Amino acid sequence: MVTLETIVAFTKRRGFVYPTSEIYGGIANSYDYGPYGAELMKNIRDLWWKTFIQQRPNMVGLDSQIIQHPTTWVASGHVGSFSDPLVEDKKTHKRYRADHLIDAWVKGYMSTTRVDPSKSDPVLDVAINKIAKATVESMDMKEMAEFIKLCKITSPDGNELTEPKPFNLLFETELGTVAGEKSKVYLRGETAQGIFANFKQITDSCRVKLPFGVGQIGKSFRNEITQGQFVFRTFELEQAEIEYFFDPEHSDWHELLEAWKTDMMRFVTNTLGIHAENLRWRRHTDKERTHYSKETFDLDYHFPFGWKELWGLAYRTDFDLMAHMHHSKKSLEYVDSATGRKFVPHVIEPAVGVNRLFLMALVDAYVQEDLGEGKSRTLLRLKPSLAPVKVAVFPLQKDERLRTLAQSIYRDLAQDVVTEFDDAGNIGKMYRRQDEIGTPLCVTVDYSSLEEKTVTVRDRDTMKQERIPIDALHQYVLQVIRT
Amino acid sequence: MVTLETIVAFTKRRGFVYPTSEIYGGIANSYDYGPYGAELMKNIRDLWWKTFIQQRPNMVGLDSQIIQHPTTWVASGHVGSFSDPLVEDKKTHKRYRADHLIDAWVKGYMSTTRVDPSKSDPVLDVAINKIAKATVESMDMKEMAEFIKLCKITSPDGNELTEPKPFNLLFETELGTVAGEKSKVYLRGETAQGIFANFKQITDSCRVKLPFGVGQIGKSFRNEITQGQFVFRTFELEQAEIEYFFDPEHSDWHELLEAWKTDMMRFVTNTLGIHAENLRWRRHTDKERTHYSKETFDLDYHFPFGWKELWGLAYRTDFDLMAHMHHSKKSLEYVDSATGRKFVPHVIEPAVGVNRLFLMALVDAYVQEDLGEGKSRTLLRLKPSLAPVKVAVFPLQKDERLRTLAQSIYRDLAQDVVTEFDDAGNIGKMYRRQDEIGTPLCVTVDYSSLEEKTVTVRDRDTMKQERIPIDALHQYVLQVIRT
Repeated sequence: MVTLETIVAFTKRRGFVYPTSEIYGGIANSYDYGPYGAELMKNIRDLWWKTFIQQRPNMVGLDSQIIQHPTTWVASGHVGSFSDPLVEDKKTHKRYRADHLIDAWVKGYMSTTRVDPSKSDPVLDVAINKIAKATVESMDMKEMAEFIKLCKITSPDGNELTEPKPFNLLFETELGTVAGEKSKVYLRGETAQGIFANFKQITDSCRVKLPFGVGQIGKSFRNEITQGQFVFRTFELEQAEIEYFFDPEHSDWHELLEAWKTDMMRFVTNTLGIHAENLRWRRHTDKERTHYSKETFDLDYHFPFGWKELWGLAYRTDFDLMAHMHHSKKSLEYVDSATGRKFVPHVIEPAVGVNRLFLMALVDAYVQEDLGEGKSRTLLRLKPSLAPVKVAVFPLQKDERLRTLAQSIYRDLAQDVVTEFDDAGNIGKMYRRQDEIGTPLCVTVDYSSLEEKTVTVRDRDTMKQERIPIDALHQYVLQVIRT
Repeated sequence: MVTLETIVAFTKRRGFVYPTSEIYGGIANSYDYGPYGAELMKNIRDLWWKTFIQQRPNMVGLDSQIIQHPTTWVASGHVGSFSDPLVEDKKTHKRYRADHLIDAWVKGYMSTTRVDPSKSDPVLDVAINKIAKATVESMDMKEMAEFIKLCKITSPDGNELTEPKPFNLLFETELGTVAGEKSKVYLRGETAQGIFANFKQITDSCRVKLPFGVGQIGKSFRNEITQGQFVFRTFELEQAEIEYFFDPEHSDWHELLEAWKTDMMRFVTNTLGIHAENLRWRRHTDKERTHYSKETFDLDYHFPFGWKELWGLAYRTDFDLMAHMHHSKKSLEYVDSATGRKFVPHVIEPAVGVNRLFLMALVDAYVQEDLGEGKSRTLLRLKPSLAPVKVAVFPLQKDERLRTLAQSIYRDLAQDVVTEFDDAGNIGKMYRRQDEIGTPLCVTVDYSSLEEKTVTVRDRDTMKQERIPIDALHQYVLQVIRT
């Protein structure tokens, strides 16, 4: 598998991802999406929207705002408990995530004792074994404090640490210009709460009947200490979340969860074309799950830094709507039109990070292919529907007649699909460059194109070339890139 | 023309726009986009992206972050001078925008003196006449202070006002968790600066040659006092901005501006289908223009509250790239590959608010149609490509056979276009509801559908009905909605 370093360098060199504000020295854990990255992100968003909002019955979209009434985040629990466990180096006063330090310490201990078993300590082994059964993330503050004490874990500078304390992840800002009327507001920590807060507006204005889902895509913000895993975890992130509401008396949540698992897996493997062997379902343990969730699954992808959550699927009961009812004093009950029964619907939440889908798509498609005779090429074997550029058009040589014909073919194709025109000259280099950005088809205009009205179409994956009549080219391209 | 009040009520009732956080009492000047609004917004964004990024040669996209290095906003001038002129009521300490108070006072004075010319004052008339030649927005702090003094303008509560002072519009927040390493950052005030800051990254990684443009769509934030013009001006807004870079020695900026004017107008009238008589170009006066701009045009739309800027087009010279060069100490020069000449490109900026395009589309399409015999209907005469729902499918009566066939037609269409299924029963009501949300086609399944395999297709605008064979329906729908 490709390393993260390779992907980071590749995406920068090829215009997919740039460090944010690089000319000013950058910002840690922030990335801008360059021309090809922006197209790939758009393709992922559009496919998600098409699959889950448009094609799936009983689904509607929403586009709520990043800044909402602050009580939203009190009701959701984010103000109270959306936090990272932080410890402070008692000397340098630098802060670290306690779970990250524990994780690193455990890895160090394990590799040391593997080499030299005499260095192992049965007491520590028992403590580590306890964690291994769940995950570090599921430890509470007290357990982390005890573990740090027991194992004498220090800061990276070798100093003693404070006890872990929760650090709230919501970004704060102030709204309004009038002194005394300025109000503290938050940048949303997730898109989901905008769906719950608009539940009544949606049922009042749209003809939705349970079960139905509401989905939206948008930016969220979390003031996190991250581990530098590129776009996998960034403080500014893009989410695609769905809240699927149902009547617990009429729908079986086990069945609904299974149906969603099928749809999510089908989207990743069929629609995005990801290798199934790099995907797995992981059921959350009872301890790991948040208190209001009856069941949670993660769809994990095998990233270069290990198996990590791509997509969460949680049965959240009526926890969220009840919380918003309680804090807003407004009824969020649903009325069954057949029986007149009033109740608060339950909800299933499939929530995915668009940036994670993006990173997965790149990692999964990146191939260094050996061409024999000491030659190789880099290619992105993206599904055509994901490829940032669908087709590139080249004149074979620097000749005005070839250039004019190639330009007119370019203009025709660009009406329907993202097309590039390149006349840098060296055909081999132009092919390699398109391979690297994942362009499925390259069209070359040569002298026979002028006479026979045909062009050479080269396939990215097989490198096979075919002669196609110019007047059949448009349809041919549309057919290939719709796969 | 439809009133703003009608549009506000209509969009809420029909699931286009909800006040943000309404269950918590709302936030002033913030709106969420409901299911139909989210689809309309997406259609506008997608058409903009397709027209300007995909179909236009020499254009690439970008997706930069909302939170950038704070020096970005020092270089751009936003930290220094991105501000509203605020005055404070000396008694209540409430703040107001000086230009809004002046505007309101002038309107009041004009209508008073129109009724009773004896109340006019020649000194005030001269001062008002001066403003009328430019606009209130182009007055500087000193001029506003003098005007307020001269005309004895008071606060809405009748109290004396302080002199106007600039109030910075950037939202601030803090990034980072480590005390002492926390840094003040801003939510971006415009998307454009992300393009300038990534100029070098783009030219280094993509095969772009001058002239070329970079475009992006995204959220920006401005802590403004607004006049309650619905989604026209909100503190959280969505922009679609392009920076079109060129070599001032090879391209004539007058010609480039004219070409952009043509493209912008064609997009609004042809692609979005807006009535040309509601659009006009307005050239900024020398005084009104920002100091670095050599020429600025506004494409204005005739909103229910008057002619207002929809889309700005400015020739900004090399001001922005030079400013970022100066503050970053990095070269943002472009090298002409033919001659080797190094220089800082000049730029033309077409910048539009997506929320304004959205409001325009609704206002322009909203029609109360008299059907005779005391009957009328509301319809949104949106271009099919803009319509949130493209086609609705109904069974004519509550019969399981009709329902099953209608459902299968629905599922087939929904694979390609946003489709609704409705079996509420009353065909007239179902038609009216689809007219109101702008659905171009309604398909009704009746008993002859079972036998003859045809359906009734009704056109939104003409209300004409046609029988179409079921196996030709999919192509028929695709053809109509692609207009």
